[in-house]
Amino acid sequence: MDQLKPKPANSVPLTPLSLLERAATIYGECPSIVYKATTYTWSHTHDRCLRIASSLATLGIRHGDVVSVIAPNIPAAYELHFAAPMSGAVLNNINIRLDPRTISILLRHSESKLLFVYHQLSPLVLQAMSLLPPHHPRPLLVLVTDNEYDYDHFTPNSEEFHTTYENMVRNGDPEFQWIRPKSEWDPIVLNYTSGTTSSPKGVVHCHRGSFITTMDALVDWSVPKNPVYLWTLPMFHSNGWGFTWGMAAVGGANICLKKFDGATIHAAIRAHQVTHMCAAPIVLNMLTTLTSDPGPLSWPVHILTGGSPPPAPVLLRAESLGFVVGHGYGLTETGGVIISCAWKPHWNQFPALERARLRARQGVRTLGLTQIDILNPITGQPVSRDGKTVGEIVLRGGCIMLGYLKDPEGTSKCMGNDGWFKTGDLGVMHKDGYLEIKDRSKDIIISGGENISSVEVENVLYTFPALNEVAVVAKPDDYWGETPCAFVSLRKGLKEKPTERDVIEHCRAKMPHYMVPKKVVFKDELPKTSTGKIQKYLLREVAKTLSSIGNANTATTTATASLASRL
Amino acid sequence: MDQLKPKPANSVPLTPLSLLERAATIYGECPSIVYKATTYTWSHTHDRCLRIASSLATLGIRHGDVVSVIAPNIPAAYELHFAAPMSGAVLNNINIRLDPRTISILLRHSESKLLFVYHQLSPLVLQAMSLLPPHHPRPLLVLVTDNEYDYDHFTPNSEEFHTTYENMVRNGDPEFQWIRPKSEWDPIVLNYTSGTTSSPKGVVHCHRGSFITTMDALVDWSVPKNPVYLWTLPMFHSNGWGFTWGMAAVGGANICLKKFDGATIHAAIRAHQVTHMCAAPIVLNMLTTLTSDPGPLSWPVHILTGGSPPPAPVLLRAESLGFVVGHGYGLTETGGVIISCAWKPHWNQFPALERARLRARQGVRTLGLTQIDILNPITGQPVSRDGKTVGEIVLRGGCIMLGYLKDPEGTSKCMGNDGWFKTGDLGVMHKDGYLEIKDRSKDIIISGGENISSVEVENVLYTFPALNEVAVVAKPDDYWGETPCAFVSLRKGLKEKPTERDVIEHCRAKMPHYMVPKKVVFKDELPKTSTGKIQKYLLREVAKTLSSIGNANTATTTATASLASRL
Repeated sequence: MDQLKPKPANSVPLTPLSLLERAATIYGECPSIVYKATTYTWSHTHDRCLRIASSLATLGIRHGDVVSVIAPNIPAAYELHFAAPMSGAVLNNINIRLDPRTISILLRHSESKLLFVYHQLSPLVLQAMSLLPPHHPRPLLVLVTDNEYDYDHFTPNSEEFHTTYENMVRNGDPEFQWIRPKSEWDPIVLNYTSGTTSSPKGVVHCHRGSFITTMDALVDWSVPKNPVYLWTLPMFHSNGWGFTWGMAAVGGANICLKKFDGATIHAAIRAHQVTHMCAAPIVLNMLTTLTSDPGPLSWPVHILTGGSPPPAPVLLRAESLGFVVGHGYGLTETGGVIISCAWKPHWNQFPALERARLRARQGVRTLGLTQIDILNPITGQPVSRDGKTVGEIVLRGGCIMLGYLKDPEGTSKCMGNDGWFKTGDLGVMHKDGYLEIKDRSKDIIISGGENISSVEVENVLYTFPALNEVAVVAKPDDYWGETPCAFVSLRKGLKEKPTERDVIEHCRAKMPHYMVPKKVVFKDELPKTSTGKIQKYLLREVAKTLSSIGNANTATTTATASLASRL
Repeated sequence: MDQLKPKPANSVPLTPLSLLERAATIYGECPSIVYKATTYTWSHTHDRCLRIASSLATLGIRHGDVVSVIAPNIPAAYELHFAAPMSGAVLNNINIRLDPRTISILLRHSESKLLFVYHQLSPLVLQAMSLLPPHHPRPLLVLVTDNEYDYDHFTPNSEEFHTTYENMVRNGDPEFQWIRPKSEWDPIVLNYTSGTTSSPKGVVHCHRGSFITTMDALVDWSVPKNPVYLWTLPMFHSNGWGFTWGMAAVGGANICLKKFDGATIHAAIRAHQVTHMCAAPIVLNMLTTLTSDPGPLSWPVHILTGGSPPPAPVLLRAESLGFVVGHGYGLTETGGVIISCAWKPHWNQFPALERARLRARQGVRTLGLTQIDILNPITGQPVSRDGKTVGEIVLRGGCIMLGYLKDPEGTSKCMGNDGWFKTGDLGVMHKDGYLEIKDRSKDIIISGGENISSVEVENVLYTFPALNEVAVVAKPDDYWGETPCAFVSLRKGLKEKPTERDVIEHCRAKMPHYMVPKKVVFKDELPKTSTGKIQKYLLREVAKTLSSIGNANTATTTATASLASRL
């Protein structure tokens, strides 16, 4: 037995890229991407990806080079999930909501060689480029528009762009022999979790991990063949939780929306007969708080939502409209959803309160994760399965990231020799093996589907000279899910006391808008433990009680404005 | 980038065994196995597997030891797919249709430490044991009956049995810390492809390969959660093509049948509301040639069939009854189905003849296979995609076996340095990328779902002194799919010429009954090429024309008798 070793025929690297050619063979005539007036088939997508990959190679992109893209959910963003790594590159998807300073930090940290820029984001990117240090190598800029027909009407007003995406398609070679990974541990994507501090976390996933995430996502959600998948989840969020590659595996149609509100999504669902969509909790809110009643759907639309479990009223409204809602938990570090609230049919017979209690739990590990546990942070031993004892959630499995780019210390801190990946999130294990998150030790606030590190917001607040102490916590919000709420105390002896507006203006100048505290509370002193640590759990309780009258409407307006602001 | 290496948290070995504990958590109250009056839940199955694994450890089974089972599709056969490897052992499933001599060869070759024996097969096994060389170590024998209640009524009439399966369950430890693989390349199963020659092929699969096969099988067949899966495919055939482990991944109910005919299967489908089943082509025949009309099904029953594509009339009959039939191709060496005939919806609009032509093709690679090609055996270059040029089918992917046990030469012959696994089967590639098998260079005859090596049958025929030349080919058969047909010439100067019956009797004494030629044709001389090689393709043409009048009924009787003979 021991003499049987891996051989080239069975140890060929696992990679989601191998799914594309297969999709072109089986689903060649089926729609792959639908966007505005454009419909591509899987034959087109295969052809276009090979052409882009070959053009990247022609431009000098080599194995392991970082290629970035900053774009909303348009065809090019989808295609690059295959095309960029098919050239041997590592794809780096940049969040379009970041500010120029953060983008420049990411470009510098990733040493990106080439950046695909959506035309409406070019002012943002050019500003980011201007913030790069003088002698830092510049990435080549490639202009991307909505689709191939747009380019004729579009004259870039800048010489900064080397070429356009469609030129790369046109000049590319559809017979290109794409660069297969040498090892399944070769990086395939680089996703930044956040970036306003001086040490951004660049999560690197490998081909093997992304393949496992893809298969896992499909089996855990029971995705059938030829689904119609609506993109509201940004592809730059963990590569759409693996469903970018996943749609090639099952021959799905990717319905792309650049920007949307509830009415747009309802219209798209009906126009394309959408069957599946992933969505931040805020999108569920949009779908269920329309001013005009869209009427019930005549077929089930499956929605997978992440972050916090949807509140019971939202869930009920969504289900009454014909949505089948699942929810899960994942981190950028895990590639996609790795804990999902697998619902048991007999739970439907329980009273509403009990159902809500069960639904509030994140759930059980998906198939791609090998082990999960909750450990006592001091002893390192599993906590008892009593639904009460809090410990740190730890994971082990093939979908866990390779590590943080250029951060061996950060990597070994969360992936040490004990073989666990430490999430930093706190939770309890219920008697039945279902897990529930109780607190995030990393102090993450999830607002409108974006993760906000409270520490990062605090760092910016501390640059406001009048402030003495600051603490940022999540404030529950009917629309956004959560918003950052700042508690601050002022320095002694100030001549002029700043207003809430002053503090907010200060933040808006220094960070992406979605991270700015929506509320600033002035205190004489912040509550602290005997060892001087700010008692955030007390502040969270206060934040919950703060008035949110009139917020819903304001929020709706802000949401639409914010999502649309750059597009 | 290059500094990011695999770490214990993300390189934890892939294994299908991790699916069982998860099934117990999510599907604990759902049925896992249904057999006669017994219904287990996934909680039971988890508990029972841990107990069996702990008892195996107590009996001295260690990492890498081979543990065998010879049993029909009963609960124990299912459980052992988890329980045996959870003790660190390698599971070896023995085909119950083999003869004592072959079984003794397998026990010797595998060095099996322990053999679970279904009670009705104990005479067969004891005879096989008596054929082991005097000083060869004997495997421990453990008696298995239909279910736990049977044991009370059952007194083994032999002291050969060390204990019973249910004793091992009763005395086992449900808190056993199961033995996780040290490496994902550790062996998990040993499956023999055939065994009548002196060099049986022991196919070894590893944990990683079986995990990939399992996920692949689920995605490729779009298996939803909580399917009701009927076992007609023997679990000893490539571990039920991965669906043994697969059912734990999706919380399926395993409906076990020990023996069956068409009526039994129809009854089981209705009694349990079966949704999925894998089946040899012969089972499709059984289902569609009942004497009494079972009436159409009121829900779709998905059937996956392997080997040769089902003939058009059988397919039409099956579909009219409510079956949704898919077919694929796989080898013991590939773990499960790795080419499947992915059907395109618009093909339904084609005329019947064209549909039959498309359906006769084996299809395209499944997701778990990374690459497939058809190579010119001389140049090693891919053949042109013209649907005409024949070459050898070669594969590359994570589901390919580790290798053949104790056969480095055989292993490197089919898994060489070119990185391909060579199937030995010949096929053509159509323009659209669909593959069609044209001939099996290994000369396999598939009869009633069992693979028969024509070379092995020929070797036995050559031990009949009166025969001069022999050649065995497949003869198409309405019921069995194919049967072995022998063409023979006699030695010169024989005083007494043997009859067809004499030859068949000779074979029946020396090989499993299913391998015995159903027809023997005497020729003065067999057709040969200029270099003296027997022209089998000419004999195949002759075999096709041989009368099969009256065969159907005879075959039906024989089939029931043969499947039931030992049970």
